[in-house]
Amino acid sequence: MARIAVFPGSFDPITKGHENLIRRALPLFDKVIVAIGVNADKKYMFSLEERKEWIRQTFSFAENFEVGSYEGLTVNYCRSVNANYIIRGLRNAEDFQFESSIAQMNRELAAEIDTVFLVTSPEYSAYSSSIVRDILRNDGDVSKFIPNSIQLNDDL
Amino acid sequence: MARIAVFPGSFDPITKGHENLIRRALPLFDKVIVAIGVNADKKYMFSLEERKEWIRQTFSFAENFEVGSYEGLTVNYCRSVNANYIIRGLRNAEDFQFESSIAQMNRELAAEIDTVFLVTSPEYSAYSSSIVRDILRNDGDVSKFIPNSIQLNDDL
Amino acid sequence: MARIAVFPGSFDPITKGHENLIRRALPLFDKVIVAIGVNADKKYMFSLEERKEWIRQTFSFAENFEVGSYEGLTVNYCRSVNANYIIRGLRNAEDFQFESSIAQMNRELAAEIDTVFLVTSPEYSAYSSSIVRDILRNDGDVSKFIPNSIQLNDDL
Amino acid sequence: MARIAVFPGSFDPITKGHENLIRRALPLFDKVIVAIGVNADKKYMFSLEERKEWIRQTFSFAENFEVGSYEGLTVNYCRSVNANYIIRGLRNAEDFQFESSIAQMNRELAAEIDTVFLVTSPEYSAYSSSIVRDILRNDGDVSKFIPNSIQLNDDL
Amino acid sequence: MARIAVFPGSFDPITKGHENLIRRALPLFDKVIVAIGVNADKKYMFSLEERKEWIRQTFSFAENFEVGSYEGLTVNYCRSVNANYIIRGLRNAEDFQFESSIAQMNRELAAEIDTVFLVTSPEYSAYSSSIVRDILRNDGDVSKFIPNSIQLNDDL
Amino acid sequence: MARIAVFPGSFDPITKGHENLIRRALPLFDKVIVAIGVNADKKYMFSLEERKEWIRQTFSFAENFEVGSYEGLTVNYCRSVNANYIIRGLRNAEDFQFESSIAQMNRELAAEIDTVFLVTSPEYSAYSSSIVRDILRNDGDVSKFIPNSIQLNDDL
Repeated sequence: MARIAVFPGSFDPITKGHENLIRRALPLFDKVIVAIGVNADKKYMFSLEERKEWIRQTFSFAENFEVGSYEGLTVNYCRSVNANYIIRGLRNAEDFQFESSIAQMNRELAAEIDTVFLVTSPEYSAYSSSIVRDILRNDGDVSKFIPNSIQLNDDL
Repeated sequence: MARIAVFPGSFDPITKGHENLIRRALPLFDKVIVAIGVNADKKYMFSLEERKEWIRQTFSFAENFEVGSYEGLTVNYCRSVNANYIIRGLRNAEDFQFESSIAQMNRELAAEIDTVFLVTSPEYSAYSSSIVRDILRNDGDVSKFIPNSIQLNDDL
Repeated sequence: MARIAVFPGSFDPITKGHENLIRRALPLFDKVIVAIGVNADKKYMFSLEERKEWIRQTFSFAENFEVGSYEGLTVNYCRSVNANYIIRGLRNAEDFQFESSIAQMNRELAAEIDTVFLVTSPEYSAYSSSIVRDILRNDGDVSKFIPNSIQLNDDL
Repeated sequence: MARIAVFPGSFDPITKGHENLIRRALPLFDKVIVAIGVNADKKYMFSLEERKEWIRQTFSFAENFEVGSYEGLTVNYCRSVNANYIIRGLRNAEDFQFESSIAQMNRELAAEIDTVFLVTSPEYSAYSSSIVRDILRNDGDVSKFIPNSIQLNDDL
Repeated sequence: MARIAVFPGSFDPITKGHENLIRRALPLFDKVIVAIGVNADKKYMFSLEERKEWIRQTFSFAENFEVGSYEGLTVNYCRSVNANYIIRGLRNAEDFQFESSIAQMNRELAAEIDTVFLVTSPEYSAYSSSIVRDILRNDGDVSKFIPNSIQLNDDL
Repeated sequence: MARIAVFPGSFDPITKGHENLIRRALPLFDKVIVAIGVNADKKYMFSLEERKEWIRQTFSFAENFEVGSYEGLTVNYCRSVNANYIIRGLRNAEDFQFESSIAQMNRELAAEIDTVFLVTSPEYSAYSSSIVRDILRNDGDVSKFIPNSIQLNDDL
């Protein structure tokens, strides 16, 4: 059976931390689908199309890579794309607490889908989309925090 | 390239927590090698042969499974068996702290080997070999903490 | 002196995790009052009456059990019902950090009221009202996460 | 049914942290048994008799208090003294990780015995028997870290 | 080179925990600037002027002390006042996770500015501005949680 | 009053993590004394003289730097060298738990000595002397984990 993984997230915007994790996930699975979860109650800094495009650019080199988006439960999306794995990154012990609960709930909702974790490389462990947005709001330079292939500051 | 993973540990003895993790690792990799690390300075309750035999019994159903043992650095063993992944379980935030440092050091020693984490299912998250040994030393019944296929209390 | 405990929370809605904790608290105290704290600035998914009714149904078997609700400080409510204990559950280390600060502040506000903690049984440690609400919003089945005596999905 | 609790530990020696917890446990239970677990493989700084005597002195005022000692599993000792509760203190998140696993294992070994936690008052949260021993070994003054009723420095 | 430190925060309102940290920071630096970060999207309970005035009163005895305020990135403010250090308090492991990421990001934005941490004295480790506001909203007495020199309850 | 700090540790051997922290501590204090605590009950891989020499080499460029060693309590050593600060590094939340307790105990033993913390730069956060020793025991190359100025592998 093909090993298909979904890497869910908001990616508002994608950071070098995400890039590091997804690059390492690519050889582990037959296909990796980076999927933007859309929550109608949440406000995003960047449009869904912008966020998808930046992800697409970052991994244009990869053959077993796709971008997607979904509303609703992550496990339902996984089923719709035949994914049997969810992949998530862990930056620190606080991430672990949060992510391990989500993983357990997903396993109770869909026993056939397991969650696999990679630990973010330490040089990126402080990077987060929310800090990148905060720097952008204050006109700071975020180029070192986001993938080299994209230019966020120019877009604003 | 085949995805070969080493699951290193002492397994003194194997618990239902280990069993849960390894069962979930089997479909994720083309081959999973459960490898007992031997540290000359450490005293074990069970002999290497006993520990290997219990692991072998527990996963006798699996075709992509092997048992091994090694002295020295885990990454050197991985290279000797062509493994490109180490797989480890996380029971709680304390495990995360310890394991993420080990994973990072292994990555610095051998950049081609990545570590993949699974979170122990919550019903086994309190199980550990050291608590099993402690119960055994005090003549308690450990049968619910170890794989069903093995009988530790009978062996003592 | 009678040992009377308040178990405060939002219970929006009650989960099997809450149920597990309260069942274990009942024999420890002469009376357990499950008390819904009402915060005027917070929006709830379910009405106060619905939440109280589900709690009442869940513990209808218990003789030393009451449901209540309150606005304002928890310690003031405790005093109004002559409770000398607050009881809270801990699911993980993050809960511990948050709850131990609250307990300390309550002790500074009311030295005669102490907080007692039970650790959530591991099979429920990932359950939370917020995840249940999230599943409900996405039309998922929450029956395994809430007490058997109540039917949330039918109510929506 | 009487509520009888065992507070197990090494108490090598008892600290003001232990004293704080046990004082708060006394009104919560009908009887509190402070029980020194004896591990033949472990070396203690103080004899079992000294440790028991200091505990006895500290709580001589309490009517529902006993001192005991035991070898083997804590749950077996609890059964032998008809205790249905174990009481333990939590100083910080690391204690929580360790103690919650022990509590879960005890519950699996003896479902009728539950563990209740109190959080150490913050002014004592850094105190531990091992630091007290360390200060004693280096001829420091430990009087502020141990119950007022005992004089450890004089005893050495 | 003079050692100038910025202690950034919302101080809505200043607590005894803040006071403890800043008192200990004063002898460590040639100048300590307590700086209120103003975030246009956030609502505060107290006006910027009130918050500054309370800080000023609390440290009126200190010669190497200043109060300031800023919008935008903390590192930009530090540069504008020639500060080479940021000082922050840590109450618990959760604070550590959050603060260490912020410190790392600040270091990436401004390599010449380092962050120095003090651990809040344990008797104040549960105090936070948000709990003080919560008590105030419920007409509780906050005098023991805020510096002795200020009277918050009278102001409301 | 001069600001004199002691950075205590075993340094068995010094790592790039220690080096990073001490380099950052040097401009913060008028003098930094790196002090090797000698515990008669502990076995070290390297002699006291070797460890001191490597530290000396690493910071030979610094004018406000000294190496020392001591037996007994760290606060007593601080007093003997007129140090009013202890400086320690934090790699992760587990370090925080341990170090904050030690800092609090030191403050109770010597109220005039405060502890200042720096967070290890993330690229070194997994480095520890014990892992370096482990790699050395297994004939691995440790050069990337220790200061550039010293050659540990050659010494063995």
